[in-house]
Amino acid sequence: MSGAPAFSFALEATSGAARAGRLRTPHGDVLTPCFMPVGTKATVKAVLPPALRTLGAQIVLANTYHLALRPGVELVRAHGGLHRFMGWDGPILTDSGGFQVFSLADTRVVGDDGVEFTSVYDGSRHVFTPRSVMAAQEALGADIVMAFDECAPGTLSTSDIERAVARTTRWAAECRAAQTRDDQLLVGIVQGGVDAALRRRSAAELLALDFGAYAIGGLSVGERGDEMLATVSLMDELLPRDRLRYFMGIGDPEGVLDVIARGVDVFDCVLPTRLARTGAAFTSAGRLNLRNARYADDLGPLDPECDCPCCRTYTRAYLRHLVKQREIAGMQLLSEHNLRVLVRLCERARAAIVAGTFDEFAGARRVAPDALQERSSNQ
Amino acid sequence: MSGAPAFSFALEATSGAARAGRLRTPHGDVLTPCFMPVGTKATVKAVLPPALRTLGAQIVLANTYHLALRPGVELVRAHGGLHRFMGWDGPILTDSGGFQVFSLADTRVVGDDGVEFTSVYDGSRHVFTPRSVMAAQEALGADIVMAFDECAPGTLSTSDIERAVARTTRWAAECRAAQTRDDQLLVGIVQGGVDAALRRRSAAELLALDFGAYAIGGLSVGERGDEMLATVSLMDELLPRDRLRYFMGIGDPEGVLDVIARGVDVFDCVLPTRLARTGAAFTSAGRLNLRNARYADDLGPLDPECDCPCCRTYTRAYLRHLVKQREIAGMQLLSEHNLRVLVRLCERARAAIVAGTFDEFAGARRVAPDALQERSSNQ
Repeated sequence: MSGAPAFSFALEATSGAARAGRLRTPHGDVLTPCFMPVGTKATVKAVLPPALRTLGAQIVLANTYHLALRPGVELVRAHGGLHRFMGWDGPILTDSGGFQVFSLADTRVVGDDGVEFTSVYDGSRHVFTPRSVMAAQEALGADIVMAFDECAPGTLSTSDIERAVARTTRWAAECRAAQTRDDQLLVGIVQGGVDAALRRRSAAELLALDFGAYAIGGLSVGERGDEMLATVSLMDELLPRDRLRYFMGIGDPEGVLDVIARGVDVFDCVLPTRLARTGAAFTSAGRLNLRNARYADDLGPLDPECDCPCCRTYTRAYLRHLVKQREIAGMQLLSEHNLRVLVRLCERARAAIVAGTFDEFAGARRVAPDALQERSSNQ
Repeated sequence: MSGAPAFSFALEATSGAARAGRLRTPHGDVLTPCFMPVGTKATVKAVLPPALRTLGAQIVLANTYHLALRPGVELVRAHGGLHRFMGWDGPILTDSGGFQVFSLADTRVVGDDGVEFTSVYDGSRHVFTPRSVMAAQEALGADIVMAFDECAPGTLSTSDIERAVARTTRWAAECRAAQTRDDQLLVGIVQGGVDAALRRRSAAELLALDFGAYAIGGLSVGERGDEMLATVSLMDELLPRDRLRYFMGIGDPEGVLDVIARGVDVFDCVLPTRLARTGAAFTSAGRLNLRNARYADDLGPLDPECDCPCCRTYTRAYLRHLVKQREIAGMQLLSEHNLRVLVRLCERARAAIVAGTFDEFAGARRVAPDALQERSSNQ
């Protein structure tokens, strides 16, 4: 893997397009497919690192945009980096902040050199450029860092997406040139909305820059589900087999299976923990919300098929009580549960890929259409 | 211990008035002196049972008033009691709800038979009587249950306190008569404000009812500190040596030492966890609040002398970041830390009592007067 001897990615098995791999990092291996819990502000909300280990999390994300604004990257650097700052000694990935600049800042000014935007914290003005984002990520010290990109949803006009693709390529090259640490895996992000021609162009331009791994950006941001999946399948054709592939922003069990089936190795989403804080849980029978009065006297486990401490210890009635009373324990237990559902799904998907039975596994896991509830994949 | 063969209390050592004992309960032993974390609504806020075990908690409280209103005691009974409901298999104590009836309900009507009050949840009217409170506590199924009392602060008039003492005795006898389970230790509560004569009368009347253990109620509710301590010393004279003594509602390290020194065995308070949720921490150098800007770049541990995971893993700067960002992890870590401070203080006090060196221990632990910050002992 060019420029990053501290890393290697090896495919261990495939089953159709689905892949089982192993990523080596300076902080340990990541077995793929792998869901990565999101710790936006250097903490996975309501789940401390020991609990992350217990539920089988292998790698966590943190967010450059938020950390650059609060508490600032220099404080994290002074700690020796995010691992020591947040007490997580496994692999860490930082995003580039690109998604937040485009989704949070309503007064951003995008130019070819970067983005000027208003902080969500105090209204102050800031500029992110490829060079400044790389410097920030080097200060944060994650194992995996992301190129700065312009996230262009497929709902934009073709010309807008085309301009974003061009900027993303330019910025990717600038990030590549700006990298000074050889112990961080820099990931190039392919854009192009759901336009096949633009995806091909973006992929070709990024492949020419020879990144150690590639991400699929600009999806799960409002486009139709069939267009999203067709685009992932196209990326499976376009991206090199021997590089890690990261789908940015998917975290519902159905969606995760869909992208694993199309050759994605790692993915992340705030959905599991965000849903948990509203009282909603993934279960083997679909999504349920404990605020529903039907669970008030329910002495059964949240999900009888789940092996997490929450499901082994507590009843739905108790969990509902916690949720209704806004007790922090409810957020802790449901967050751990929802994350465990996704981690276990990946563990089982991996085993099925290794056994060559992924199609049967994925088919059996799909919830019957009438049990399907709202699908979403908020980033 | 009369009527409660499932329980025994044995003094193992004394050092001055301070006592080291062992309480046997159906869910395990409690070594005293012992601070009991408060799980008002059947959960210690932000600290799950495994974390309580890790920090050395031996017994937790739950609150009859709150649980009777939400989710209702019948749901807890249907679970087989609080232990299974809240996933804590160690000893549990429920208070009688008396304190909440008197502190929360601004539209209560107190009569000789009980109290009618308005729910803080939905404004509905409820009546607590000694008989109904005992039935509720038998449904909740804690190991230790409290007689229903009228909590009368020392700031009330003598005649008001006298009337509360009389009612407390009457209700204590009714609770004694109403008890049907022999696997719950019923505790009589002595009232009398800071009036020595009334305390003597209340103690004598309750001793005549031969409770298995005694609580000191009506303190830490606004009276002067010296009056409070004098009253505890008086109780040490009046209460039988061979029965467990429970001071209701003290949870700052200095105050805890003060009451241990005066012969108290167990005590509880929401203070450690409530403070934690505001960013405040007990440390060996006194109380500090992480919201203070002086900790923004502080790479040292919260308390260099503390053995808790929070202090062993994180810096003050990281903890302050969590507090400022209102991250749940901040509440989790500070709650665990503050509870650990009190649990460890009790462990060390016990060791000193056994060694006969409690006075030296307590003297060395006292913070210099100029480092003392606000003392409070909110219930």
